[in-house]
Amino acid sequence: MKAYRSYEDLPKIKLPLGQEVFISDSTIRDGSQMPGIVMKKRHKLEIFEYLHKIGVEKLETFVYNERDREAVREMLDRGYEFPEVTGWARANPKDIDFVLGMDGIKETGILMSVSDSHVIDKMGLKSREEAEEKYVNALQYAVDHGLRTRAHIEDMTRADNEGFVFPLIEKLLEIDPDCTIRLCDTLGYGLPFPEAEEPYGIPYIVKRLREIGTKNIETHVHDDFGFSVACSIAGYWYGANWSSLTFLGIGERAGNAELEKVALFLITRVEGFDKYDLKSITEFARYMENEIGIRVPRNKSVVGRNIFAHESGIHTAGIIKNPFTYEPYQPELVGGKRELMIGDSSGIEVIRYKVEETLNELMHVAAKVDKNDPRIRAIQQDIQKLYNEEQRVSCISDEELKKYVEKYFMLESIIDEHSADDMHSAGGKKKSKK
Amino acid sequence: MKAYRSYEDLPKIKLPLGQEVFISDSTIRDGSQMPGIVMKKRHKLEIFEYLHKIGVEKLETFVYNERDREAVREMLDRGYEFPEVTGWARANPKDIDFVLGMDGIKETGILMSVSDSHVIDKMGLKSREEAEEKYVNALQYAVDHGLRTRAHIEDMTRADNEGFVFPLIEKLLEIDPDCTIRLCDTLGYGLPFPEAEEPYGIPYIVKRLREIGTKNIETHVHDDFGFSVACSIAGYWYGANWSSLTFLGIGERAGNAELEKVALFLITRVEGFDKYDLKSITEFARYMENEIGIRVPRNKSVVGRNIFAHESGIHTAGIIKNPFTYEPYQPELVGGKRELMIGDSSGIEVIRYKVEETLNELMHVAAKVDKNDPRIRAIQQDIQKLYNEEQRVSCISDEELKKYVEKYFMLESIIDEHSADDMHSAGGKKKSKK
Repeated sequence: MKAYRSYEDLPKIKLPLGQEVFISDSTIRDGSQMPGIVMKKRHKLEIFEYLHKIGVEKLETFVYNERDREAVREMLDRGYEFPEVTGWARANPKDIDFVLGMDGIKETGILMSVSDSHVIDKMGLKSREEAEEKYVNALQYAVDHGLRTRAHIEDMTRADNEGFVFPLIEKLLEIDPDCTIRLCDTLGYGLPFPEAEEPYGIPYIVKRLREIGTKNIETHVHDDFGFSVACSIAGYWYGANWSSLTFLGIGERAGNAELEKVALFLITRVEGFDKYDLKSITEFARYMENEIGIRVPRNKSVVGRNIFAHESGIHTAGIIKNPFTYEPYQPELVGGKRELMIGDSSGIEVIRYKVEETLNELMHVAAKVDKNDPRIRAIQQDIQKLYNEEQRVSCISDEELKKYVEKYFMLESIIDEHSADDMHSAGGKKKSKK
Repeated sequence: MKAYRSYEDLPKIKLPLGQEVFISDSTIRDGSQMPGIVMKKRHKLEIFEYLHKIGVEKLETFVYNERDREAVREMLDRGYEFPEVTGWARANPKDIDFVLGMDGIKETGILMSVSDSHVIDKMGLKSREEAEEKYVNALQYAVDHGLRTRAHIEDMTRADNEGFVFPLIEKLLEIDPDCTIRLCDTLGYGLPFPEAEEPYGIPYIVKRLREIGTKNIETHVHDDFGFSVACSIAGYWYGANWSSLTFLGIGERAGNAELEKVALFLITRVEGFDKYDLKSITEFARYMENEIGIRVPRNKSVVGRNIFAHESGIHTAGIIKNPFTYEPYQPELVGGKRELMIGDSSGIEVIRYKVEETLNELMHVAAKVDKNDPRIRAIQQDIQKLYNEEQRVSCISDEELKKYVEKYFMLESIIDEHSADDMHSAGGKKKSKK
């Protein structure tokens, strides 16, 4: 009989191939391309600090303008072992020269668009052959100048992989066998299922990349259809060792796979995986909200304000008994805090619990209140009235609840004490406190 | 040779089992349980209208209080064929009586929590047997009173499915062979991979449910680890015919799988699937933002403000040549609008394009401007200066761009015309307009 009643009871997952896996951050590159967002140098440095705290292995950045180069110099000056700062270039020597111009950057990504839409329509090239020549030459140039390389195979999930892309990658690996092949699911077309066919199947593509001898496979997945996290984990699951992610999933259009979701999955679900520390991640999210103006919805996984907030009757009743019932992991892991709220979907139990809490706080006692106490019912009725009349649209604040507690539990008790028995008001029936 | 250069070129997906699939909405049930959100009757009615426009087959609602019952009566009064309004009850006759009290509701969900954490710790029952008896009796009661049924198998991804849950479901199916079995991934622990083992593998659970003769399988997936959409589609992929979803993914904690993502996937990617109409969905999202106060981040898939907004150099250049390069589907499908923005990551091409647009608008002509026109470079330099000085944190508005166009293209041309050749100012070099 399998019984799971605590976090320790739940079986951990083994990645089927058992390889070591890593995170490559793109928050200050793809993230900063997000329309409507302007990331200043100090923002990039602060993001770098948070990534360092988490333990992310690598980040990529543009080095085209002096603002970005200054940011990189300051990052390198901090002397951290990680995240390693790497560059980003289009497939031409001029762009790679920008990266080479930065002392301390030892690796660069090189953009290699492979769908016909991108080769012909976007780049205006005549043929795939022309594109291939360009990419091979750019990689050769980077290698000749001593850089480690990453080939960003753009729009691979809308490309002729068997007819064009895998043969191209074989040529790249001849030049640099250690080249990291970044599988860019640029338009979010990838699917996480092993049966999904070309060009959409992330498992299929990863499997084929391994077959042609790719040592380092990295996914980079956009969220247009909502599969970004699943496809990133599918990458790891079927053999990739890197995942390119952004914090909060910021980036072009629907953005990228969220770094915080992937890291959370790894540390809470995968056996023996504990190399990332997410305790600062809630604070990191508030920083992005307040300083860069990224909207974080209440129900955003991992870092939203609702992740450990409970209001509805069934959920709050469960949480009060044992948080494991309705919390997928412990708040401390991500620097979060449990919150019980009273709203229109709340039941009696959360009111009882919060009344008890309020009494204890107000009077410095250890009160126990029964959920059948008529004063609890009276408070519940008062609250339901607010919602039934359809005026009220927010939760009951702690301050408001305090007023109810004062009214029903304290003031009425005093009045009761000082008045004749027949003066007892409704809901103020005297009850001995334990 | 496979070449994909238009939406029509891209191969459609076939769901491997070819079954017909449906959507069951939970926006006004699980969605309204979202802490901090209060949904009024008029909100629920408006959501009902939008779901009707989309073509969603079913919704579920509470009927505990008079507010909700009034909303249901108004929904039924509209006489729509869909969404069908169904109920929600805990596993006891009293709750089911609430549903029975509503003329016009013919189906109810019944909550059946199955993890030991929920059975023992939350519900305070002594044993699984006690839970089983309760659930079997509740189902029998609903069937005896003429209701169609849905068994909400809560917390199934943290339960002993082989030891307890599948045998329980066999008993439920004996009572009602048409009972829809809702696979609730209550804490978001489900994984979309067929190799994922018990209790986490959604494909495995769906396969086992089919083996024991379940005709109607519905997923209901929470997003705590970011897999909600992938697991919902995994449900369909491996044999489920229903998916329980909420609009914008609102709901408890990290919320549920997003209705708009799943519907978009079906209509754009699956062969022969065109029964949902998403043209009102962007407007629907604005309604939820403005009227119910749901925050929608710019990069929210399908309905965020950035989904068809492009700012960075490479992306805008691609879009101007052919939107297929960087748009996963056409904006019209979801009532969206393409937007090209000038920001700190923009290149020369988008400035050229928008200057052209502005000129045409201002002067009612069909101007063509070359990207090497020095006036374009001058505008780019002015804009880069704003960002380099690190004062500027927002995009360049159309109003601002108009000022640049007036300055460099119109006023300076007039000045040029009226002054001697040696008076030409920098960047104001006269150029004939075509």
